Amino acid sequence: MKFSVTKEALLDGLQRIQNVVSTRSTLPVLTNALLETTETGLRLTTTDLEVAIRCEIAAQIEKPGATTLPARRLAAIVRELPSSEITIETDAKNISTLRCGSSFFKIFGLAKEEFPAFPSFKDAKTYSIKQHDLRDGLRKTSYAISVDETRYVLNGILFSFKDNKLTLVATDGRRLALFDSDMEFPQSHERDFIVPTKAVTEIQRLLGEEGEVQISVAENLVSFEVAGGQLVSKLVEGNYPNYRQVIPGEAKERITLEREAFLTSIRRVSLLSSDKTSSVRLAFSKNNLDITANTPEVGEARESMAIVYRGRDFSIAFNPEFVIDPLRNLTNDEIYLELIDEMSPGVIKINTPFLYVLMPMRVSV
Amino acid sequence: MKFSVTKEALLDGLQRIQNVVSTRSTLPVLTNALLETTETGLRLTTTDLEVAIRCEIAAQIEKPGATTLPARRLAAIVRELPSSEITIETDAKNISTLRCGSSFFKIFGLAKEEFPAFPSFKDAKTYSIKQHDLRDGLRKTSYAISVDETRYVLNGILFSFKDNKLTLVATDGRRLALFDSDMEFPQSHERDFIVPTKAVTEIQRLLGEEGEVQISVAENLVSFEVAGGQLVSKLVEGNYPNYRQVIPGEAKERITLEREAFLTSIRRVSLLSSDKTSSVRLAFSKNNLDITANTPEVGEARESMAIVYRGRDFSIAFNPEFVIDPLRNLTNDEIYLELIDEMSPGVIKINTPFLYVLMPMRVSV
Repeated sequence: MKFSVTKEALLDGLQRIQNVVSTRSTLPVLTNALLETTETGLRLTTTDLEVAIRCEIAAQIEKPGATTLPARRLAAIVRELPSSEITIETDAKNISTLRCGSSFFKIFGLAKEEFPAFPSFKDAKTYSIKQHDLRDGLRKTSYAISVDETRYVLNGILFSFKDNKLTLVATDGRRLALFDSDMEFPQSHERDFIVPTKAVTEIQRLLGEEGEVQISVAENLVSFEVAGGQLVSKLVEGNYPNYRQVIPGEAKERITLEREAFLTSIRRVSLLSSDKTSSVRLAFSKNNLDITANTPEVGEARESMAIVYRGRDFSIAFNPEFVIDPLRNLTNDEIYLELIDEMSPGVIKINTPFLYVLMPMRVSV
Repeated sequence: MKFSVTKEALLDGLQRIQNVVSTRSTLPVLTNALLETTETGLRLTTTDLEVAIRCEIAAQIEKPGATTLPARRLAAIVRELPSSEITIETDAKNISTLRCGSSFFKIFGLAKEEFPAFPSFKDAKTYSIKQHDLRDGLRKTSYAISVDETRYVLNGILFSFKDNKLTLVATDGRRLALFDSDMEFPQSHERDFIVPTKAVTEIQRLLGEEGEVQISVAENLVSFEVAGGQLVSKLVEGNYPNYRQVIPGEAKERITLEREAFLTSIRRVSLLSSDKTSSVRLAFSKNNLDITANTPEVGEARESMAIVYRGRDFSIAFNPEFVIDPLRNLTNDEIYLELIDEMSPGVIKINTPFLYVLMPMRVSV
C-alpha cells in the first residue's frame, strides 16, 4: 500500500475515529486503526467490538492495500508534523513508513486480517433525518443520560420512531430530557431502541450541519451513516422505562425567563449551596424571582430577577446542576418554566418540541 | 468595614494571591484571605506559614476595617459576577455582605486577629533588580528544579549575589540551568540563599514587565516587593551543591541550531522514544544532524536538519524531555549546542548569559 495525504485531512480523519479505540484492550489490534485504500481515497476504521466507526478522507493512492496502525500514536505523530504532504508506504510485513518533509517514521502495524470485520446489516429498517436535527436533539438530551452503571437501560438515549416522529429521551431518574423531530416513515418502521452513551458521544463527532444522516436498525445493531462516515453500535438490551408517566399534567404557572440571565444567576447562587443538600430555592412573588441558597457556617446567596408573574407567592427547590445542564445546552433567548406546586416536578420548555422534567428537592431552607 | 471595588480589580487581586492558600490546612484561617483597607485601597493577604503574599488594589473605602474571607470561594463568586461595581460590607461578627447588581451574598469570615502576622524583617540586605530581568531568569531556570522531595536543597532556586551579579541556578542532578544578570550591590551584600519552589512559582505571578523588584533577605526569610505587591518566603535550609564543578570545560564542537525547528523535530522524534530508555540520539555528520529514536516492536523515527558542521562524525543520546524544556522556555531564534564527546555533558547556550548543562544517556541504539 502506498498513498499521499495532506496533514489536515489525515489528522481530521484520525480525530473523528480515535476515541472509539479502547484504552485497556486485551486484544492488541483493537488499539489500532484499519487503513484501507478505496477508489477515491483512504478509509479509516476503529472498533472496540461494541462501537465501530469509519470515515473516508481524500488521498492520492499510488498502490492499493490495507494495514492497521496504532490509532492514538499515529494521531500524536501526525499532529506534530508540519502542514505538508504525508506519504505512507506499507511493506508485506505491515511495517509502515511515513515521510513528511525531513521527517521519517517507521511504525510497526498488524495485518488487516486480524482486524474485526465491520458489522453488516440484514433486514434493517432505514430512516433519514437531517444531520443538523439529530445533532441538535442529541445535544439537548445527552447530558441527562444516567452514569449509574447498575441502571444499564438508562446508560444511553432512547430513539423512538412513532407517528412520523423521532423522539429522543434521556433520563437518570431525577430529571428527564425529551426532544421531538417530525419525519416521515411507513408505519411498519415504528420502533424503539436504546443507543449506548459511547455511541451517542461519537455520533456527535460524526454529524455536521449540512446533509442527511441515514439511520439503519437491525435486531441488535444500529448504524448512522453520513457522507464520508459511518458508525455502527450494538443496542442497549432491555426495555426503556415508561417515560410518559413522568411528564406532569397541566401546569399552574408558566414563567418566561431569559435563559442567559437565569443561567448566570443560578450559577452564582449555587456557589453557596451546601455540599450536603446541594439545592437552590426559587421563590416567586409578584413580578419577581428570588434565587437563594445557603450553607450553614459558610454563608448565603440571593439573586433577584424581574419577571412577569402574577400568581400566588410560592417557592420550590432544585439541584442547581440539574437546572444548569439544560440551560447550557439550549440556545434560545427565552425558556419557559412550568410549575404546579412545591412538590411536583418542574418542566423547562422552549418554543420548539423539547421538554425537560426536573424533580424538586424536599428541603426546608 | 465597607468598600467598593470593580470586579476586574478584585478578581485580579484574588488571582494573584489565592494560590498560596493551603488546600489541606489544619488551621482554618489559612484558607482565608485577609482583607484590610488602606489609605488608598484594599490590601489582600494569604499565607500558608511558609510563603506569605499580599497585594493592593484600588478601592473606594467608605469605612476602614479588616476581616478574613475564604479565598478560593470568594474568587469563585467574584469570577461569576457581572462586570460591575462590587460593594462589600462587614459587620462586627465578621459576616460580610457582598452586593453587585441584583446579586447578594452573605459570607461568614473569621476575625483578622486570627490571621498570622505578616513576617517582618530585621537586619535585611536589600537588592534592586528589574522585574523583567528576574522574571526572565526564573522562566529560564525554574523548569530544572528537582521535584524529588528527598533532595530538599534542590527543591528551589539558588539566588547567588556575588561580584555584582545575580546568578540563578536550578538543578535536579541530571540537568542544570543557570542564568546571570549584572547588577550593583556593595561587597558586604554578597550572599547565597535558596528560594523554595512554591515561592518561585508565586513570584512569577507577581512580577510584571516594567519597574523594579526589591529583594530583601534576612537570616531565614526573603522578601520580593514590587509596586502594589509583596511576597515573603522562608528560605530552604542547607547548602546548595557546588554547581560550578558540573559545568564542562572547553567545548570541542559548537553547533548553531534554529531553536523552533530543533524543538519541533525533537518533539516529533520523542514520540517514538521507548518508555524504558526514553532517549533520542543526535548524530552529527558533515552539515547534517539526524535526530533518531526507536522503540522495539513499535517503530522508529528520524528527522534530518541541515546545519553548519564540519567536525568528525559522532552521536550522543539525551532524554528528549530534558532537551525540550529549555528550548520551550527560551525565546531566541538561535541556540548553541556545545559538545565534547559522547560521554560528556552537553551545554545549551544563547547569546546572553545563560547556560544549560545536560547529562548524556549511555544507551546503545
